[in-house]
Amino acid sequence: MSASADHAHGAPRPRRAVTIARIAERAGVSVPTVSKVINGRSDVAAGTRERVEAIIREYGYQRPEKAVSTAPLLELIFHELESAWAIEIIRGVEEVAREADLAVVLSELQGRHTPRRGWIEGVLARRPTGVISVFSGLSPEQRSQLDSRGVPFVVVDPTGEPGHGTPSIGATNWSGGLSATRHLLDLGHRRIAVISGPDRVLCSRARLDGYRAAMDAAGLPVERDLIRTGDFHVEAGFAQARALLALPDPPTAIFAGSDLQALGVYEAAREAGLRIPDDLSVVGFDDLPVARWVGPPLTTVRQPLVEMAGAAVRLVLALARGERPEQTRLELSTSMVVRQSTAPPRER
Amino acid sequence: MSASADHAHGAPRPRRAVTIARIAERAGVSVPTVSKVINGRSDVAAGTRERVEAIIREYGYQRPEKAVSTAPLLELIFHELESAWAIEIIRGVEEVAREADLAVVLSELQGRHTPRRGWIEGVLARRPTGVISVFSGLSPEQRSQLDSRGVPFVVVDPTGEPGHGTPSIGATNWSGGLSATRHLLDLGHRRIAVISGPDRVLCSRARLDGYRAAMDAAGLPVERDLIRTGDFHVEAGFAQARALLALPDPPTAIFAGSDLQALGVYEAAREAGLRIPDDLSVVGFDDLPVARWVGPPLTTVRQPLVEMAGAAVRLVLALARGERPEQTRLELSTSMVVRQSTAPPRER
Repeated sequence: MSASADHAHGAPRPRRAVTIARIAERAGVSVPTVSKVINGRSDVAAGTRERVEAIIREYGYQRPEKAVSTAPLLELIFHELESAWAIEIIRGVEEVAREADLAVVLSELQGRHTPRRGWIEGVLARRPTGVISVFSGLSPEQRSQLDSRGVPFVVVDPTGEPGHGTPSIGATNWSGGLSATRHLLDLGHRRIAVISGPDRVLCSRARLDGYRAAMDAAGLPVERDLIRTGDFHVEAGFAQARALLALPDPPTAIFAGSDLQALGVYEAAREAGLRIPDDLSVVGFDDLPVARWVGPPLTTVRQPLVEMAGAAVRLVLALARGERPEQTRLELSTSMVVRQSTAPPRER
Repeated sequence: MSASADHAHGAPRPRRAVTIARIAERAGVSVPTVSKVINGRSDVAAGTRERVEAIIREYGYQRPEKAVSTAPLLELIFHELESAWAIEIIRGVEEVAREADLAVVLSELQGRHTPRRGWIEGVLARRPTGVISVFSGLSPEQRSQLDSRGVPFVVVDPTGEPGHGTPSIGATNWSGGLSATRHLLDLGHRRIAVISGPDRVLCSRARLDGYRAAMDAAGLPVERDLIRTGDFHVEAGFAQARALLALPDPPTAIFAGSDLQALGVYEAAREAGLRIPDDLSVVGFDDLPVARWVGPPLTTVRQPLVEMAGAAVRLVLALARGERPEQTRLELSTSMVVRQSTAPPRER
């Protein structure tokens, strides 16, 4: 069957029917050149590569399954490796990848949320079994380059819209926000502040909405002054908590967007001479190992990071085997872990 | 030049003169089969591979430089990914690897100190530019398999003897132990306990020897009761500190083998109703990011983990380029970071 004959009359092209020969013809290059591009070889001029890639995208070419063997590699991309959060994800990925005899190639994007241009060439040349990205997206071009090679892509905890056909693994952030706030309400707190993650990150919004839902259900107003945003690091927690504690009517409890932010809240409380939980209750989010060991041990919303990472590997492997899982968006459940950083508010 | 002619009379064989043809002859296999073994191909029977590998070792064969191209990959091996320690190393490796356009393949050995048998086949098949191992050794067979392919190997902070020709990067552990103990002596402490890492890990011994040297210099006896060992995790710090604080004459200061152990000491102090630093001074080792954020912030010996990892990458790259660095054992210096967990002892 020849693709050029099939499509002589401009009929809609079924995706599978596009051949390398047709792409070569359109690009005005040889068939081996197209093969080189598809197989990620480096001995192709940059201009030629771009022209061929554009036609591959235009035609929606997909490599016939098993036409080229993939390497027993899994690509794992982090936008940054700054926190203890990352190691939990790495452990979860390593564990399941090892069972499947896959080696893990780790890339850090130095805080960028989309890999830089050169990154994809390296990935394509390595022909990985799959790509898992943590907290980062790919550009449409990068997505289509993986698609055309049949390399599946799964995102752990996406920053943006979970739609767009990108399979992804998350956690029940809304429920986590609700549970944390309910816990504080049950203890008798009324002035509950929240330090949220960055606005652009959907999970921040989901947690904040869970907080609002709990406050609304308790018939309490949500005060603008008590809602702060910052990134997920210790420093942001410190800065925002400091501002909250300096309010004329400061909160009696703070729900932080991450355990690291909660450590920053601890620091601000120490600076202000406040004892946790006597003078201030604190709830974190994540349940990093350190949460158990800070003073006092931190009440937090456990996010099953190791399990989420493992689920991402299983999903990417299923996709690589050609399976079409019914669910391509999974949210594993968060759970409250009550330790010693929360208590009823002090009478004033 | 033919290796078989050279060695017809049993003269000592120069390492470079052994050819693949000679190995094939000895093993009773074809030259292409030997090539496959050397290039890590998987389509060789296990028994044949072992026979060829044994002869490669026996003859001390080394692949002629540049005979086979290596992939732009760096292998990074951890014996375990349990602690925040690991992420510092990964960051340091990623940083320098990225500059050199190398992707990093991460393996975790699940607490083993030598990779399992199957691991090396994966590495050889990937033809990495170099291998860096953190805290773990390779078996002599695994070393020789890397050697014969010209894949350089560097160890970060080895558990054993730093000799045996393995290039390695460490930190000045002895000086670190000395400085920590001196700091406590200067504050007026006399009953200073130490929680050391495992005996089999040389850095534990070096730090302990530094402690002894400082105590000796101060004319103080080193009491057996005050020296404890455990692994580097929080739980071990907790268990050992608990035992120390239950002594009839407990220490006024504890020098822990790691920041994580120090967090365990914090927990034991809380349990015993002791305040840090008023009732007990604590010094850690490593200076993980969390050390700044615990309550109170931890006085510790900074181990430059990111820099050590970067130095390991630079060393392995130098070896891969065929350079023969004068120093193949580097120790980067540790430094005291005084925070708020240490103070003069309380008068009793």
